[in-house]
Amino acid sequence: MEDIVALCKRRGFIFQSSEIYGGLQGLYDYGPLGVELKNNLKQAWWTSMVYYRDDIEGLDASILTHPDVLKYSGHEDTFTDPLVDCKSCGLRFREDQVPDHCKDEDLTDPREFNLMFKTNVGPIDDGSNVAYLRPETAQQIFTNFRNIIDSTSRVLPFGIAQIGKAFRNEITPRNFIFRVREFEQMELEFFVKPGEDEDWHKEWVKLRSDWWEDQGIPKSRLTLLEVPQDDLSHYSKATTDIMYEFPHGQEELEGIANRKDFDLGSHTKNQEDLNITSNVNKNNSSNAKLAIQDIKTKEWIVPFVIEPSAGLDRGVLAILTEAYNLEKLDDGKERVVLSLKPHLSPIKAAVIPLKKNNDDLVAEAIKLKSELQTMNLGRIVVENTGNIGKSYRKHDEIGTPICITVDFDTLDNGTVTVRDRDSMKQEKVPLNKVASYFDNYFKA
Amino acid sequence: MEDIVALCKRRGFIFQSSEIYGGLQGLYDYGPLGVELKNNLKQAWWTSMVYYRDDIEGLDASILTHPDVLKYSGHEDTFTDPLVDCKSCGLRFREDQVPDHCKDEDLTDPREFNLMFKTNVGPIDDGSNVAYLRPETAQQIFTNFRNIIDSTSRVLPFGIAQIGKAFRNEITPRNFIFRVREFEQMELEFFVKPGEDEDWHKEWVKLRSDWWEDQGIPKSRLTLLEVPQDDLSHYSKATTDIMYEFPHGQEELEGIANRKDFDLGSHTKNQEDLNITSNVNKNNSSNAKLAIQDIKTKEWIVPFVIEPSAGLDRGVLAILTEAYNLEKLDDGKERVVLSLKPHLSPIKAAVIPLKKNNDDLVAEAIKLKSELQTMNLGRIVVENTGNIGKSYRKHDEIGTPICITVDFDTLDNGTVTVRDRDSMKQEKVPLNKVASYFDNYFKA
Repeated sequence: MEDIVALCKRRGFIFQSSEIYGGLQGLYDYGPLGVELKNNLKQAWWTSMVYYRDDIEGLDASILTHPDVLKYSGHEDTFTDPLVDCKSCGLRFREDQVPDHCKDEDLTDPREFNLMFKTNVGPIDDGSNVAYLRPETAQQIFTNFRNIIDSTSRVLPFGIAQIGKAFRNEITPRNFIFRVREFEQMELEFFVKPGEDEDWHKEWVKLRSDWWEDQGIPKSRLTLLEVPQDDLSHYSKATTDIMYEFPHGQEELEGIANRKDFDLGSHTKNQEDLNITSNVNKNNSSNAKLAIQDIKTKEWIVPFVIEPSAGLDRGVLAILTEAYNLEKLDDGKERVVLSLKPHLSPIKAAVIPLKKNNDDLVAEAIKLKSELQTMNLGRIVVENTGNIGKSYRKHDEIGTPICITVDFDTLDNGTVTVRDRDSMKQEKVPLNKVASYFDNYFKA
Repeated sequence: MEDIVALCKRRGFIFQSSEIYGGLQGLYDYGPLGVELKNNLKQAWWTSMVYYRDDIEGLDASILTHPDVLKYSGHEDTFTDPLVDCKSCGLRFREDQVPDHCKDEDLTDPREFNLMFKTNVGPIDDGSNVAYLRPETAQQIFTNFRNIIDSTSRVLPFGIAQIGKAFRNEITPRNFIFRVREFEQMELEFFVKPGEDEDWHKEWVKLRSDWWEDQGIPKSRLTLLEVPQDDLSHYSKATTDIMYEFPHGQEELEGIANRKDFDLGSHTKNQEDLNITSNVNKNNSSNAKLAIQDIKTKEWIVPFVIEPSAGLDRGVLAILTEAYNLEKLDDGKERVVLSLKPHLSPIKAAVIPLKKNNDDLVAEAIKLKSELQTMNLGRIVVENTGNIGKSYRKHDEIGTPICITVDFDTLDNGTVTVRDRDSMKQEKVPLNKVASYFDNYFKA
């Protein structure tokens, strides 16, 4: 983990937030390379969900959330962690994370601490106008259910996908970007007919495991954990966690829950008319019927929902962990190489003029970069340091799939030297073949 | 404006947030089409800034921000609007937005109301551990200046670009997504040598106007406003606002400010050693030297900064306004068409089987959709309604550049009918030419 954190800071993947003022615990900023990696992972998820399938719509809802949403979802009452005070040192801890030196008789009894951030909205600051920063993106998917079926004419089964920030006031943030106070989620709520929920749950567990494999995390490093019935949230019929072997231990990367009709049933009006099977609180505030009419029977159905919910920052950490390799080379030296899947690499190719101060080489490199950039495959840079070896080492460390060196042969006979990150093999490629050579990295 | 708001709700671009619980003022959710439009606009900005140029790095910093950041930036003291109370009705207003019926002697004297949202961080809720939701994305660019130059070895001039949410507790949100409490910004801080700032300011005003034109807003609808010296923020040497004729009046779409060395000078340590020209408050908290060493003279320079700061939601509103057309057709009928630039269209192509229940046609449509989807140009849908005319009208309204109808000729001789949104012209195209036909829409 220390190597990864150090690489992240040194190369510009991830910095501590507000670091120049001592930092804020559990908050991180994504630097020039981190923002590309994160955006590439988001794009891979969105493409697999919204573009490649024909049964999923997208959404991007607000972060500030009406308190009624989190009241009826159950978060106001139950989204808590047990908090204890150490009477000796005065610090507060999550009950299961008390350090050894406070573990004696000095602790208060645990009390429930709500993890939602709250803020005042509007010009009257008397506590009557609060909103929460959403603790998950899921709830606004449910509250928009009516708007989305009305505007898209969807029938079951179909899903709504969302990527966005969520916030939890963790008592003890820890393990780099694993447990933080501000994070991003990639959540899908997939609505199905009651009775078809168990099959769809199995299907989504499989699809999501396959997807993580496509992002470079082999199945051998993932464990599917069936959450025991006693540990399930009260609304969940079954939950499968995809667990990954993080540097600090095996923890959840994504959870796939069968939430039945709990969420739509909690947020709908006219609950009593809808044969809701989950145990929901009475809702007299909602103005929308969150149900769908069966085309044939004309019966109103509250769909069951399967929720694959993935942590984006955890995904980034897992992918970095998996890609990070310290390799011993034949000549006895070592290199750090980040073997990212090319579609996730922050920089797709580096074009390197052999000499820094040679105008012809630099102009040729810029021209080639501009041409490759129009292929819309992501960020391509000109690496104008005049030091090929150093450039190779840098781009190995940040996971750039190929380096393209522009040398005097380029000016003489129109060839460049292309070097592959993983094999370190170099080959001469004619300029007019570079685009297709490059394109092949993204078709594997 | 009413037509646009109605279209946005009906077709799934934009909904009021938490609508089923009565909504929250000044907060909106982007629906299935809105999220695509917004993401396409972000991507166009990011591509033009980070990918096509060689002198800009990206960043994605946290929303929760250390109070010292916003203390030294000046926001704690000066980021306020004048607030008045109506003694008669009890409501509060921004001083310049008091409704007529409250304009008599009933008003209190104005007092300054800080627009930043505040929240408590960590388990101790006694007001000692607050963070702000950032009121702009810019500040975390400045606080990360050192981290970014250390990890990228940049020299002047270079920029740092960021897209993300920002929050302002507006006293009176209004005009749909124009003035809201939660919004997204696309901000660039471009760092230059003092003395080169005026030329770069001019250059960025030109570049940004050109960019908006590429997004479908003709220059004839944009006005460049030189903010008068008396109206400038105290840190600004010059600001040019790009004004657009919104449905509710001419207002700012983007501002390009010359902020000199105010920001880095405010956040740096060792201010006294750095020849800062701006009038900055004394900073004893920062632990970072936010300056850059001139390679030749070895002198430490606090760069001047040019800031093009664009509102993403305002951009969406301007683009929708510009694209929305109610056209009279030759047959006396009317159609609504959203003439979006193809790269911004939420859906890039609709593939429509002529008949809904014909398995062969539907299978052929799905196959074609899948093939076109791999071109990575954005979302493509199969429109399986069995009603060609209705599908055309829908896709005109949501701005889909082309509709492709799969009919019995497709099965017989491998041709489809392609219809262009703007001209409404239809032509037969062989299946093996559809990809290049489609591709051409994005090369214009």
